[in-house]
Amino acid sequence: MKKDNQKEKDFISFLNESGLVWGPSPEIYGGLSGFYEYGPLGKLLKNKVERSIRNIFTSNGLMELECPTILPDEVWNASGHLNAFKNKLIKCSKCNAIFRVDKLIEEKTKIIAEGLPNDKLLDLISKNNISCPSCKGKLETSIDTQSLMMKTNVAGKEASLRPETATVTYLPYLRLYNYFRKKLPFGVFQIGKAYRNEISPRQSVLRGREFTQGEGQIFIDPKTKNNWEKYESIKDQMLPLWDYKSQKSNLDNTEIPKIKIDNALKKGILKSQAYAWCLWLAYTQFINFGIPEKKMRIRQHHPDEMAFYAEDAWDIEIKLNFYGWVEVCGIHDRTDYDLKQHSKFSGKELVAQREDGSKFTPHILEIAFGTDRPTYALIDIFYEKKEESSGKTTFKIPYKMAPIEVSVFPLIKNDKGILKLSEKVKEILENEFIIDYDSAGSIGRRYLRSSTAGTPFAVTIDGKSLIDNDVTIRDRDSEKQIRIKIPELSNILRSLLLEKISFKDFL
Amino acid sequence: MKKDNQKEKDFISFLNESGLVWGPSPEIYGGLSGFYEYGPLGKLLKNKVERSIRNIFTSNGLMELECPTILPDEVWNASGHLNAFKNKLIKCSKCNAIFRVDKLIEEKTKIIAEGLPNDKLLDLISKNNISCPSCKGKLETSIDTQSLMMKTNVAGKEASLRPETATVTYLPYLRLYNYFRKKLPFGVFQIGKAYRNEISPRQSVLRGREFTQGEGQIFIDPKTKNNWEKYESIKDQMLPLWDYKSQKSNLDNTEIPKIKIDNALKKGILKSQAYAWCLWLAYTQFINFGIPEKKMRIRQHHPDEMAFYAEDAWDIEIKLNFYGWVEVCGIHDRTDYDLKQHSKFSGKELVAQREDGSKFTPHILEIAFGTDRPTYALIDIFYEKKEESSGKTTFKIPYKMAPIEVSVFPLIKNDKGILKLSEKVKEILENEFIIDYDSAGSIGRRYLRSSTAGTPFAVTIDGKSLIDNDVTIRDRDSEKQIRIKIPELSNILRSLLLEKISFKDFL
Repeated sequence: MKKDNQKEKDFISFLNESGLVWGPSPEIYGGLSGFYEYGPLGKLLKNKVERSIRNIFTSNGLMELECPTILPDEVWNASGHLNAFKNKLIKCSKCNAIFRVDKLIEEKTKIIAEGLPNDKLLDLISKNNISCPSCKGKLETSIDTQSLMMKTNVAGKEASLRPETATVTYLPYLRLYNYFRKKLPFGVFQIGKAYRNEISPRQSVLRGREFTQGEGQIFIDPKTKNNWEKYESIKDQMLPLWDYKSQKSNLDNTEIPKIKIDNALKKGILKSQAYAWCLWLAYTQFINFGIPEKKMRIRQHHPDEMAFYAEDAWDIEIKLNFYGWVEVCGIHDRTDYDLKQHSKFSGKELVAQREDGSKFTPHILEIAFGTDRPTYALIDIFYEKKEESSGKTTFKIPYKMAPIEVSVFPLIKNDKGILKLSEKVKEILENEFIIDYDSAGSIGRRYLRSSTAGTPFAVTIDGKSLIDNDVTIRDRDSEKQIRIKIPELSNILRSLLLEKISFKDFL
Repeated sequence: MKKDNQKEKDFISFLNESGLVWGPSPEIYGGLSGFYEYGPLGKLLKNKVERSIRNIFTSNGLMELECPTILPDEVWNASGHLNAFKNKLIKCSKCNAIFRVDKLIEEKTKIIAEGLPNDKLLDLISKNNISCPSCKGKLETSIDTQSLMMKTNVAGKEASLRPETATVTYLPYLRLYNYFRKKLPFGVFQIGKAYRNEISPRQSVLRGREFTQGEGQIFIDPKTKNNWEKYESIKDQMLPLWDYKSQKSNLDNTEIPKIKIDNALKKGILKSQAYAWCLWLAYTQFINFGIPEKKMRIRQHHPDEMAFYAEDAWDIEIKLNFYGWVEVCGIHDRTDYDLKQHSKFSGKELVAQREDGSKFTPHILEIAFGTDRPTYALIDIFYEKKEESSGKTTFKIPYKMAPIEVSVFPLIKNDKGILKLSEKVKEILENEFIIDYDSAGSIGRRYLRSSTAGTPFAVTIDGKSLIDNDVTIRDRDSEKQIRIKIPELSNILRSLLLEKISFKDFL
């Protein structure tokens, strides 16, 4: 346990010193739990994650929106959040500390407790003899609730910060329906902030009170759920589906065999082609982030656990080194619940029309995830602290996801010719790549720093470059070097980063 | 006046129907002033603006951060916002309507009133016989204030949404100082949301209560202000500087001659090399957005108008078709004010050390702007509604800033061969370009839609393409067409969009 603590400390110091994540912020004022800063390296990585989301959604036909983060409370009343979006809390009868009861049970028993009714939760506390984690005192036998909504006031009007991007994506439905020329299905997505007043959040950006979501929302005619045009092209793909009937209480170390999507539908594990396509699209997002397949599984919600509006719900989970299996994405068939609620509360008709003239309320399939957890997962999975004896700390993030793509180093700082050529190389490369130009310190230290930042390639300009126009490219993982003509540099680096060619091809 | 109203109505209907900007949102609930949605086309455009900011800042050595949007009130107390960040209001004695007094004076007299003391404001109201814009009643003779801060509460702690990104960028100063290896100057920037509880905001996203900032902050040793390494490379550049002594009361239609930066310093119009470099960097941002030079000027603040912490302050202004000259960027020498305040309130030493061992509080130069106003400006400037008789509405945004870069059209919808080849072309192009694939409707209508969205090029796949592997590229502005082999398509479109070649070269 002590060793684990040391490992976690080392990891947090890596997060801090590499400029990845700082906080809780504002640190100089003592910090407020659940708020963090992304430093220069962390922000570059988060931008890569967001670019990856845009690419996958866009190439699958979804379009991006940006909607407000603050809405008047009549919206949150209609969506149900004001009444129902609450944490369940339990208090220690001895020290008065307050805990989220579902998380407490999950930590102690590995049983998924989110969404369970109060009597079941209290039953689990008592059966498993769970006591106060702070003082070991007896927990109270009643459950309290606290709203997760952060409230504000705009021009005298009660309003709340959005706790998710879903609702705000549904509100301009009529605008969207017109934009997409009154043809379903259409899909949109949002990448943006959301806010939840969680009780004592920990675990860095995995559980922030302010976090970035990246949600896709597909508006469909329910009649097409099993006549889904795009199903044909994905039905033979394999997914690691873990249906609720196969789930045992122990959540760790469960390996989930993959199953062909078409077979999952035939067996009744998945209910519709359209939903299956959404699962595939969500999984593709995480594959494209570079999360290794064996670190992922897709877990079905137990009927008890499912949100009241959802017809079916599965989560993508990632296995982290420090916190075990963590939910990173929920895929929900929300049916016509949301549009019907907002139609009722706003008095506006929110329907679509089929070619035969019949009107209906579209169903919504949702892919709900965020960018903080994938960013964090990439660091957790690819970071490795080595013992003093066995070499240096590494950050072997997949090349295409590296925050900085190319380092540019003039070998000697005090040679004007080398500096001038290095700046020329910098200017050529920065048009296309994310680069770090560094002229300070010994070349060995700069290579080490570059590799600890996960940067795949370091380009060094030396005295010989002035004569033959060659520069050195050094590969992060093999630590081998090759020499390349400057005019060829961009093309070769591009192909290397896209993994169209391998560094070995040059050796 | 009626004609102007019609023009503005046409413009707003263009914003809505093109999927650029919707609101105030949530529209179906009646809307809350100052909150807007970017539709699919608007969000693509805003993303381009944000990418442009990243490119310019990054290639000039600044690194991006992401800091919280909510901070505890002790921060806003230290920064002075809780006490001083207020709108000055005046009330109509007849109808009780409330107005922002500085904006009211500016609208009626064109005198810049922001920052003036109360007695001067009341003097201007009385001298210019300004009455209530709603009922023409007499305005009261006292000025009230209202805080611009949006308040919330996190875990029982008073907190506020940030009204700007500046303060939150300064708070991790010690982390930044370490990340940049204790060497000044260093620069960072943030692109993110900020919130202000403005009184009755109008003018679409130009004056939102929720808006996106894009601020650069340069931390410097004050001793280097006139020994600024990067000054040499920009001193011969020309800027349209309008110093406060040359400013007359009438703000419209003033053409500002450009002056060489070095001359402006020699004449004492600009105070320091470092500040001049920041002005140049800010101006470069707007040039890179594609704002025409003749629509821009850089206006110095009158000493009366300047924020109490600023040593020098200039604004970049853009001339819009609908609202005249609008401030889009402020460049401030904030001196050591911020770090000293936060040091005092947090009790932490926020200093840097010179090579000779002497310690000092860094000065901060700030480039404060946002992404909503440039996005809006690009639409306002390049949109042109034509009369029925003289052709169609155009949106001639510079090619490189176009929200969608390439449209891909199968000529005929019901030909499987054409559809298959079109999808192949789509897949090739979407790796690199922002494309719109559209197979519905007549080709003429699709060309029109594509050109109204500002899309520079439309690629059409027809029956002949199946035989010779050629496709048509149609140019938005000349409406001319050329035929190109599919394998050459990406290279040619890339060169056209970067304006390395011109469409005329092919004709």
